[in-house]
Amino acid sequence: MSSIVPEFEAANAQYAAAFDKGDLALPPSRHVAVVACMDARLDPAQVLGIELGSAHVIRNAGGRATDALRSVIISQQLLGTREIIIVHHTDCGMLTFSDLDIKAKVRKDLNEDVDHIAFLPFGDLKQSVRDDIAFFKKSPLVLDVPITGYIYDVKTGKIEKVDA
Amino acid sequence: MSSIVPEFEAANAQYAAAFDKGDLALPPSRHVAVVACMDARLDPAQVLGIELGSAHVIRNAGGRATDALRSVIISQQLLGTREIIIVHHTDCGMLTFSDLDIKAKVRKDLNEDVDHIAFLPFGDLKQSVRDDIAFFKKSPLVLDVPITGYIYDVKTGKIEKVDA
Repeated sequence: MSSIVPEFEAANAQYAAAFDKGDLALPPSRHVAVVACMDARLDPAQVLGIELGSAHVIRNAGGRATDALRSVIISQQLLGTREIIIVHHTDCGMLTFSDLDIKAKVRKDLNEDVDHIAFLPFGDLKQSVRDDIAFFKKSPLVLDVPITGYIYDVKTGKIEKVDA
Repeated sequence: MSSIVPEFEAANAQYAAAFDKGDLALPPSRHVAVVACMDARLDPAQVLGIELGSAHVIRNAGGRATDALRSVIISQQLLGTREIIIVHHTDCGMLTFSDLDIKAKVRKDLNEDVDHIAFLPFGDLKQSVRDDIAFFKKSPLVLDVPITGYIYDVKTGKIEKVDA
């Protein structure tokens, strides 16, 4: 399998040649933190029209809130964000396995115990968004800020708001 | 402070109207997982020319490997990625505080104990990339795959490879 490194480096040379945003400030200008899935079919900047310099973007498998907690605390306490947007999506890998499934696979394939890691899959997509909104709302480590949750449809490119 | 929600929803309506990538497969087509900082000035898809559907993108405060471990295991074990790219960047917020600083701030401002969270700041940018490459290389939970680390310069748009 060929490495993607030469392509990334060539693409970056082009990007840097045209780059004219070198004066942006460290704190996100729109005071927002986006928490989204790592899925390859989801590009949060494109999907939401995030302008460079305006928002933190935190991504992990599933776009789970608990896994994003460290980053959200830093985002709010040190860099002044005051709004959270959560984006999960259709056809998510997290709908396809259980925590026990992956623990068994790692034990079988890698011969390692991963009982100490919660892999955070989910069976209901809407509920996963509601659960993650609720997690932030209830956490005493997260400020009481507006939180909006969406499901992104990988077939249509549309986001749909999830009522909390 | 006005919510960014109306702007994100308007931008998404435009995105969806022009969307024509509804047939992409769930597993990343280029078998790569990118681990990058959440910083607002870093857009990994643009910086590296990541095509939609080709790579997992995991982002957290600092782009730290330990915090990305759950996602990387899922990426490799369930979705077949076989290469890791790490991207930290100049002027990172993680260079500006210590673990004790933020713990003290949370205790003072939120009146909460966060001794159970490691905030993972760093004092040396290149070393932080080397440490994160080493973390993945040494972890028995991560496959022995090519790992390349970069520092992204927020002033120039350029990535610079860090020798492990």
